[in-house]
Amino acid sequence: MSKSPEEEFPQKAFGWAARDTSGHLSPFKFSRRATGEEDVTFKVMFCGICHSDLHSIKNEWGFSTYPMVPGHEIVGIVTEVGKKVSKFKEGDRVGVGCLVGACHSCDNCSNNLENYCPKLIFTYNGIYNDGSKTYGGYSDIMVASERYVVRIPDNIPLDAGAPLLCAGITVYSPMKYFGFTEPGTHLGVVGLGGLGHVAVKFAKAFGVKVTVISTSPAKEKEAIEHLGADSFLVSRNQEQMRAAMGTLDGIIDTVSANHSLLPLIGLLKYHGKLVMVGAPEKPLELPIFPLLLGRKIVAGSSIGGLKETQEMIDFAGKHNITADVEVIPMDYVNTAMERLLKADVRYRFVIDIANTLPKTA
Amino acid sequence: MSKSPEEEFPQKAFGWAARDTSGHLSPFKFSRRATGEEDVTFKVMFCGICHSDLHSIKNEWGFSTYPMVPGHEIVGIVTEVGKKVSKFKEGDRVGVGCLVGACHSCDNCSNNLENYCPKLIFTYNGIYNDGSKTYGGYSDIMVASERYVVRIPDNIPLDAGAPLLCAGITVYSPMKYFGFTEPGTHLGVVGLGGLGHVAVKFAKAFGVKVTVISTSPAKEKEAIEHLGADSFLVSRNQEQMRAAMGTLDGIIDTVSANHSLLPLIGLLKYHGKLVMVGAPEKPLELPIFPLLLGRKIVAGSSIGGLKETQEMIDFAGKHNITADVEVIPMDYVNTAMERLLKADVRYRFVIDIANTLPKTA
Repeated sequence: MSKSPEEEFPQKAFGWAARDTSGHLSPFKFSRRATGEEDVTFKVMFCGICHSDLHSIKNEWGFSTYPMVPGHEIVGIVTEVGKKVSKFKEGDRVGVGCLVGACHSCDNCSNNLENYCPKLIFTYNGIYNDGSKTYGGYSDIMVASERYVVRIPDNIPLDAGAPLLCAGITVYSPMKYFGFTEPGTHLGVVGLGGLGHVAVKFAKAFGVKVTVISTSPAKEKEAIEHLGADSFLVSRNQEQMRAAMGTLDGIIDTVSANHSLLPLIGLLKYHGKLVMVGAPEKPLELPIFPLLLGRKIVAGSSIGGLKETQEMIDFAGKHNITADVEVIPMDYVNTAMERLLKADVRYRFVIDIANTLPKTA
Repeated sequence: MSKSPEEEFPQKAFGWAARDTSGHLSPFKFSRRATGEEDVTFKVMFCGICHSDLHSIKNEWGFSTYPMVPGHEIVGIVTEVGKKVSKFKEGDRVGVGCLVGACHSCDNCSNNLENYCPKLIFTYNGIYNDGSKTYGGYSDIMVASERYVVRIPDNIPLDAGAPLLCAGITVYSPMKYFGFTEPGTHLGVVGLGGLGHVAVKFAKAFGVKVTVISTSPAKEKEAIEHLGADSFLVSRNQEQMRAAMGTLDGIIDTVSANHSLLPLIGLLKYHGKLVMVGAPEKPLELPIFPLLLGRKIVAGSSIGGLKETQEMIDFAGKHNITADVEVIPMDYVNTAMERLLKADVRYRFVIDIANTLPKTA
């Protein structure tokens, strides 16, 4: 019935794919659509490894389809643009994040919140408008509608800039929406990983006071001396946590593992806001009394719209914000996934696609 | 060491008190302070029975002290005012709600949010500035600082107006703070009891669309025909709940019993807000994914400040909003508590203090 992934479309593509719930990645030939009138085609230079790639290749969220080429922190150089494309030209430095499509007619789309469109199309493991599967950035070329492509500022290196497309916007968007960028704000960042370390950098660029909350005392020096956090709390140190109660205006909680919300709610001032951007699989326990007595809020936030993603990366350019990355060759990806599972990375793996993927063909 | 409750202060007072965790209420002689310079003394006419009175007399929240005279929906007629009192005079119709004191120097107090002052003093079961216990409105007279007294509009009957002082402000305040009074809002009200039925009335007065969500199909007719709700959902009817998913901008959840938040979060539109005003004792399960994917909020809110309480009751006067009450004599109170435990009241018991308390002396 349907053609093979390799023959489906005119542009030959090559990447690494997971074939089943083992999540093991291996070389995969497929194809991408021809550059449409509103499309941008680019040579992929680097692709970040997001924790959700790991969840997805193992079908831990229950909606994975195989073969799957993961990757939604994709940066590269434009090779071709459609005739209606106005924002980009050949040679431009560009990126694609978590989304490649949406309905463009709902309230969220009208408000530049394509990320909350009920019909949003994810960059991989999604179904595109033409009925074809979407494949992500662990691959040599990318084709996307102009609306879903952002420009990478000249001073942002492509490797360290790639994670901004998911990790960056995921923390930037709630900081803006929930008012954490206001002068005088004291912001908590829970978890110092791929998201958390970028959250600290953005928060400091906004000029707010930042406290990092982590299970790992070993990260204190790094958080304060390298990332510029103002203070550090070890979440298992009850004395420290007690002393800091009622001191934070807001918290960005990046932790995906099951954890207790009560001590975090306790850190908030009256009317404070705890915003979850990590996605624990199981429900967490929510104590109601502390919410009531302090008029506190627990909220969630998921990536950001394309307009805000461009704004975020322009802001990053202005303030020289990039992720701290460990650049790896393509054939290291399965090892990288194992290390990611153990949080053994500071702070984001980025695959050097352009230099190392072809050699694995 | 300390004097007996009856001899402690110059003004003789008589009420009904709980003496232990049985919660059984019986006649109790005590005293109240002389009318201070900034104080208002009033003859109590009616006092509402709030569900938290029931929790408190049985020490279900763990901080009850005995003897306890409950009651924080207190209305009456001014009999004496201190010489610095400017807002009230003898004969005025007034009320006191949940608070009788706060620090008046913190940020919350400065912002007319005495209800969130860390040193707030509850109307009963609290310790006043002079070190004495506070006693509530199941009693013949009340003395309170002018700041904590509100004026009851002339067209609000004192019996049906009493519950506004707790139930009313508890639902009014979050409606304002969380933006549920904006034109075009579709508000859900969970639980049709003392708080819920008043929430419906306020919401309709604000001109917003209201859906009542209840476990009890029997309340549908009442909710729509009598209270003016626009629609009704039986929370156990999965088909109804599914059909209503994504339709509400906000929800006021008045339920204190343990219940599931997931279906309520599902009823919210993107960026919707679920506000808890009931206080379940145990933590509830909070699913994180639906919060993230819809940028939704779960929040808490607790009563309101004094300025807003006056605003609320003036608004109630303008729109003829009162609670639906069952007026009872003082010596019925223990039976009323048993019925309240079974939610057997539409919707609020109010004790006719002035006419029935003296007979129990």
